[in-house]
Amino acid sequence: MLFDRHSLENLEKRYRTRLINSLSGFKSANLVGTQDSQGHTNLSIVSSVVHLGSHPPLMGLIFRPNTVPRHTFENLRDSGYFTINQVTSEFYQAAHQTSARYPREVCEFHQTGLTAEYLNQFNAPFVAQSPVKYGLKVVEIQSITANNTELVVGEVLLLDVNQNALKQDGYLDLEAVNTVAVSGLDSYHTTSRLNRLSYAKPNTQLTHLTIDGAANDNIYPNSH
Amino acid sequence: MLFDRHSLENLEKRYRTRLINSLSGFKSANLVGTQDSQGHTNLSIVSSVVHLGSHPPLMGLIFRPNTVPRHTFENLRDSGYFTINQVTSEFYQAAHQTSARYPREVCEFHQTGLTAEYLNQFNAPFVAQSPVKYGLKVVEIQSITANNTELVVGEVLLLDVNQNALKQDGYLDLEAVNTVAVSGLDSYHTTSRLNRLSYAKPNTQLTHLTIDGAANDNIYPNSH
Repeated sequence: MLFDRHSLENLEKRYRTRLINSLSGFKSANLVGTQDSQGHTNLSIVSSVVHLGSHPPLMGLIFRPNTVPRHTFENLRDSGYFTINQVTSEFYQAAHQTSARYPREVCEFHQTGLTAEYLNQFNAPFVAQSPVKYGLKVVEIQSITANNTELVVGEVLLLDVNQNALKQDGYLDLEAVNTVAVSGLDSYHTTSRLNRLSYAKPNTQLTHLTIDGAANDNIYPNSH
Repeated sequence: MLFDRHSLENLEKRYRTRLINSLSGFKSANLVGTQDSQGHTNLSIVSSVVHLGSHPPLMGLIFRPNTVPRHTFENLRDSGYFTINQVTSEFYQAAHQTSARYPREVCEFHQTGLTAEYLNQFNAPFVAQSPVKYGLKVVEIQSITANNTELVVGEVLLLDVNQNALKQDGYLDLEAVNTVAVSGLDSYHTTSRLNRLSYAKPNTQLTHLTIDGAANDNIYPNSH
């Protein structure tokens, strides 16, 4: 089914929101933890965490104007610190509930039954239930002029990973710890691994890798 | 397992790359199609597409310096147009192969057996095999100073969706068309839906939604 610019513009507003939110494919589900200068904590689910680089370890995060994570954005801008915590199938409903428009002074941890955890005196709360969580320092905030969104760039300073996920080559087996994926605005998914694939080179067959990153059988392409 | 800043800095380089690439959770798998002023096409897999907004429909995409999609970045910067095409379990290996460092003049469509498709005279090639694909106009390019990456912001001008995916409220059922998710650098996954959840409100139970977006049973929280 083909939508041109005109037909996209004329879609009913919520229909268009659901459709456009589905276009990127599967998204990460993460809870962002912050606190203000009085130590009041805030927690909000986001699906816009994106890897920016590994040396130094940088992650990006999009905040849209006037949406629920606004308190979270203000806290991390003012304090300079935040945490990112992967959401699992055990608590995705509690995580989704953090998107409700609670007043600023209400703590989403308390409202949803999730547990704030402090690690190494880091200046923002982690989610105790999360198997992969890390603390970041804000290093840059870029304003996207096209629609007044903000890109927050954070450097990873502290990382806590469930040992069950960590493979010998550094890859995290997110299925071992039940991390979920999101599609659209509201759909949560578990996953099943098809394969890890070898580093691609011109005119060379790909190989399947074991979960530990060891080479397995040749698989693609069959000719060339 | 806890990694502080010092231990993160001292990890072996490739180990750290795999670990940091695993932190964001599940990522989208998309092929970006472009062409240069002579009509030479380029295709590269990316896992950094992020939703920026629906009114207007804007998507973001991260390009890192000196990585394989550099030809793609130059093409979209120079032409002003690109396509994003969701990757499915039917062709994820061909999609992964586009990340090989082919010379500029080599066409990844030809090398991987994927088919270039032109829709409505749009100025960039689509992937015929992809069930969800859209054409974008570049509206903004932001440089992230922390590590010399570029955020490309594109506005969706043309969208082609397999009818099997489109639900009555605008949500796309990506499982119906076998869209895959990525974890880390090299792992591909199919998904199984846990649930769609209702819009969260303070002090109100969440409800499960049917795949068409209709309310189902109350589920969370059980008290309050």
